[in-house]
Amino acid sequence: MPGSTELTVPKSSPATDLIDEALRGRPSAIMMAFGPQKDMLAWSRYLRERDQQVSDCESPFLLFVMINSLEEARFAVQDMAADVLVVQGYEAGCHGSASAPPRDVLLSSVLDHVASWSSKSTPILSAGGIADGRSIASQLALGADGVLVGTRFLLTPEATYSDAQKERLLRAQSTDTVRSLAFDDARGTPDWPKGIDGRGLRSVTVDEYDAAAQGQEGPVPGQPERHARYVQALQEGDTDRQIIWAGTGIGQVTKIQPAAQAVQHLHTTTVQALTRACSYIAVQ
Amino acid sequence: MPGSTELTVPKSSPATDLIDEALRGRPSAIMMAFGPQKDMLAWSRYLRERDQQVSDCESPFLLFVMINSLEEARFAVQDMAADVLVVQGYEAGCHGSASAPPRDVLLSSVLDHVASWSSKSTPILSAGGIADGRSIASQLALGADGVLVGTRFLLTPEATYSDAQKERLLRAQSTDTVRSLAFDDARGTPDWPKGIDGRGLRSVTVDEYDAAAQGQEGPVPGQPERHARYVQALQEGDTDRQIIWAGTGIGQVTKIQPAAQAVQHLHTTTVQALTRACSYIAVQ
Repeated sequence: MPGSTELTVPKSSPATDLIDEALRGRPSAIMMAFGPQKDMLAWSRYLRERDQQVSDCESPFLLFVMINSLEEARFAVQDMAADVLVVQGYEAGCHGSASAPPRDVLLSSVLDHVASWSSKSTPILSAGGIADGRSIASQLALGADGVLVGTRFLLTPEATYSDAQKERLLRAQSTDTVRSLAFDDARGTPDWPKGIDGRGLRSVTVDEYDAAAQGQEGPVPGQPERHARYVQALQEGDTDRQIIWAGTGIGQVTKIQPAAQAVQHLHTTTVQALTRACSYIAVQ
Repeated sequence: MPGSTELTVPKSSPATDLIDEALRGRPSAIMMAFGPQKDMLAWSRYLRERDQQVSDCESPFLLFVMINSLEEARFAVQDMAADVLVVQGYEAGCHGSASAPPRDVLLSSVLDHVASWSSKSTPILSAGGIADGRSIASQLALGADGVLVGTRFLLTPEATYSDAQKERLLRAQSTDTVRSLAFDDARGTPDWPKGIDGRGLRSVTVDEYDAAAQGQEGPVPGQPERHARYVQALQEGDTDRQIIWAGTGIGQVTKIQPAAQAVQHLHTTTVQALTRACSYIAVQ
């Protein structure tokens, strides 16, 4: 790793306090994403240094880095020495880059280049729109070492979404999701790095933002009013306005079930899909 | 098939003449795409009727229908009785629906529903962004019965693109492609069904169209001038302005090679990718 980059992590802050608290819990993995390269590098070094101090160098956490472009992937592997690379496509629910390529396109590019970035073999997980076993099988066949599944677990009793939100998700099709800045606009959380938006269910909140944004080049007028309506919707449990994050895989989720059963079902259907595909080739 | 739809195919036209000419060549398959449902149904019936007359009912052609939405898939299977369904996602090069979902999302939805549309099992091909063996393997694992590969074959000596166009394609990354109406605007071929645009390499032609379209709701002004510049570019072989169709799989094509070798390479790498994925499950 080049040593000339200035460490920009503040000496003591709510963030460093939270990190210390987290590290004392001895996490198996920590995932970083979305930040400018300089910040990503500085914080990854800080995390590893603090972890050594907290853990006495026993079983350090694995650093997962989630990326949305080929250059971010190179930086994560070459400069941050990521232990695991997570390739997130534009299908993904919740936050991500507005300009992320389709998942398979980005994953294919990363797979073509990763060997030239490091002599170490970095496991690569695929993320975005993966909510059923068939999709997991397809990503393993494409060359991923594993997958990251998010949206599927919103439809579990363990998830903190309300029953009404989960019912919405259950009825949603993939085409009901949309990438937008409307969600953070409504929440009043605009401080994400440049170019980061999020994917969730289309809603009145999104429609009103889109209407206000029409023809605007800069900031979208009326944010305080939209925020106020959103806060009220939260209090009233109004799912027409609440934020419901969801990736494009939502159309393939047909059941609310405990997370353990969901994992078992994903496993079973992944094996089924692979078994079907493997019938096309002679047994080795 | 419902019998009340009026047959809207003209009795005799350049189109019907071309169809007769094609049918006399006894094609194995004919693919239809992009049309309004009424026209698709009428022409599919006409094709089959003429084929019976031309072929004396011996080995009729297979009707492939390419679709860009779940409703189009239902119509193709239920109403048109398609012999083969081609599921084309928005990754695809050349023409397609501007609102096509990502390929895997659409394919998953179709796979979930197809059994409810017909008691007959309709083979399903996946199309869009598939230009290497890994992608073929991923589509077979997802549940496709096969794939449709287009862009890959532009990088063959057999393709009619100029050497300069093929060199452009060879250097292109997936992110260099864009869906746009600019291509048909430049060619002066605006008569595609509503909602159909195309994916090709971003170029001066696209940039100029985008600049002229900014803030416009209706027709984009300046089409005659853009068309004139395009015609001149064709004469001069100017690849900055020529149309070069390409799907998002272009980044995975690294070689101009004869079509037969390309097919062999696709086959070999598909088997490699499946073999790798199959190592994850116990041999059945």
